[in-house]
Amino acid sequence: MKDLLLTIKENAELIGSAIDEYLSGSIDEISVLTDSMKYSASSGGKRIRPFLTLEVAKMFGGKKEAALPYACAIEMIHTYSLIHDDLPCMDNDDVRRGKPTNHIVFGEANALLAGDALLTKAFEVASTNEFVSNKNKVEAVLLLAQNAGADGMIGGQVLDLAGEKERLSEKTHLMMNRMKTGCLIRTSALLGCLSAGYGEGTFEYLDTKKYAENIGLAFQIEDDILDLGTEDNKTTFLSFMTVDEAKHKIDELTNEAISVISKYEGSEILVHFAHYLSNREV
Amino acid sequence: MKDLLLTIKENAELIGSAIDEYLSGSIDEISVLTDSMKYSASSGGKRIRPFLTLEVAKMFGGKKEAALPYACAIEMIHTYSLIHDDLPCMDNDDVRRGKPTNHIVFGEANALLAGDALLTKAFEVASTNEFVSNKNKVEAVLLLAQNAGADGMIGGQVLDLAGEKERLSEKTHLMMNRMKTGCLIRTSALLGCLSAGYGEGTFEYLDTKKYAENIGLAFQIEDDILDLGTEDNKTTFLSFMTVDEAKHKIDELTNEAISVISKYEGSEILVHFAHYLSNREV
Repeated sequence: MKDLLLTIKENAELIGSAIDEYLSGSIDEISVLTDSMKYSASSGGKRIRPFLTLEVAKMFGGKKEAALPYACAIEMIHTYSLIHDDLPCMDNDDVRRGKPTNHIVFGEANALLAGDALLTKAFEVASTNEFVSNKNKVEAVLLLAQNAGADGMIGGQVLDLAGEKERLSEKTHLMMNRMKTGCLIRTSALLGCLSAGYGEGTFEYLDTKKYAENIGLAFQIEDDILDLGTEDNKTTFLSFMTVDEAKHKIDELTNEAISVISKYEGSEILVHFAHYLSNREV
Repeated sequence: MKDLLLTIKENAELIGSAIDEYLSGSIDEISVLTDSMKYSASSGGKRIRPFLTLEVAKMFGGKKEAALPYACAIEMIHTYSLIHDDLPCMDNDDVRRGKPTNHIVFGEANALLAGDALLTKAFEVASTNEFVSNKNKVEAVLLLAQNAGADGMIGGQVLDLAGEKERLSEKTHLMMNRMKTGCLIRTSALLGCLSAGYGEGTFEYLDTKKYAENIGLAFQIEDDILDLGTEDNKTTFLSFMTVDEAKHKIDELTNEAISVISKYEGSEILVHFAHYLSNREV
């Protein structure tokens, strides 16, 4: 496991400095916006989404330079979603990863605009990827937009808000999870695949999709087990299954993810990553 | 002037129904989001931005089908910016165009997410334009992202917020206007040019840019004249010039806009539009 943790750390650092560079160079007059964007983008934790982009690209023989812009774009979208999620009108959170949330430091208006600007920047970064074809960039932009938008992450947030008012059915709760978190995790992996030249319609793309969907769902169920007892009124996977059933489901999903990916040469790190995500006390 | 007003009306209707179609088809479970997006997108007023896209494309012999997705994308971005601008943490406006603002009807969380989703949708729509090349789509996405982002519209909003706390210098005030409103108006016209096959580096592109920058600025100065006396503490163009000087400046800008565009065949409607924008009591 040591290799994996080291790779996670190295990738996180790479992404952190690449994003920092993308966010530099704006005019002095709007430094409060740049500072606000950088503040949230720099406290990125493990950065599992861009990790997937980079490592899937590597497995398929892609260039790191081609994967990096897409990896940064997905992390910018993830970061914007956290900033907006933390706002008083949403989850109203004051602390994230041990630091005051963006609006606590910069005020609500700047936090709102920093989120908007990060989302917008993600599309700029994806569409200026010099190491792929125009067709590839168009596919990446579309993938990002469809999965971050109303029929993806944002739709999932709407369902999540609905779940605070009324109990979600098992079907709707699963849909909420797939949309809110699953879509972006899947997109992260698919962007890596795409940057290596395997777009929609290839076996590589299909396998990457299955791998990412399975680890994404396992990750979310594991999250609910780890959070057990902290959010009593919220619908979670444990509203529909026991902890033992949930652990069994995680194992199933992880094994499925591994089985589709392990046939590829160089898949070891992604196999380890699947275990790591579903078993985060390691 | 009758032809122009009729064309504005027809284009506005075309854009309204095209956007409505783009926003249809989401799953039932997120209908509150779809309703919220449609609510603001349907009350579009004159829709001067997509008008520019469509009419510039027409002048340069472009297909309407190729201009329409870009026109819808720019209008979605404009609409999202209004929804976020009206939020309590920003301008805190309850009414827009005679209707309750989005957050008054749908609540702050849904308004926030509807804005996010419209911005995201704009990139989806631009990247699925079937009537242009991939290169063209990439250029459109980049143009949208750069002009709607931190170095464009959002940066302008940050400067505008700063202007509420301290008096802006003439230079910063001009920069604010250019970024907050000018960038999107210029982009609207350039997307029309691009959809007709004239990308960056062509004379058509350069002339369109000059035209749009001039009418954009004239429009904003005219706005300040029309608003005179309603917002006493805000920095406006009239903080730096008399009404007569402002009117003279508007004439200068309008004439400059007309001079660069009138050499093109079929430019009559855009010439009329320049007069119309700078003289809105007509």
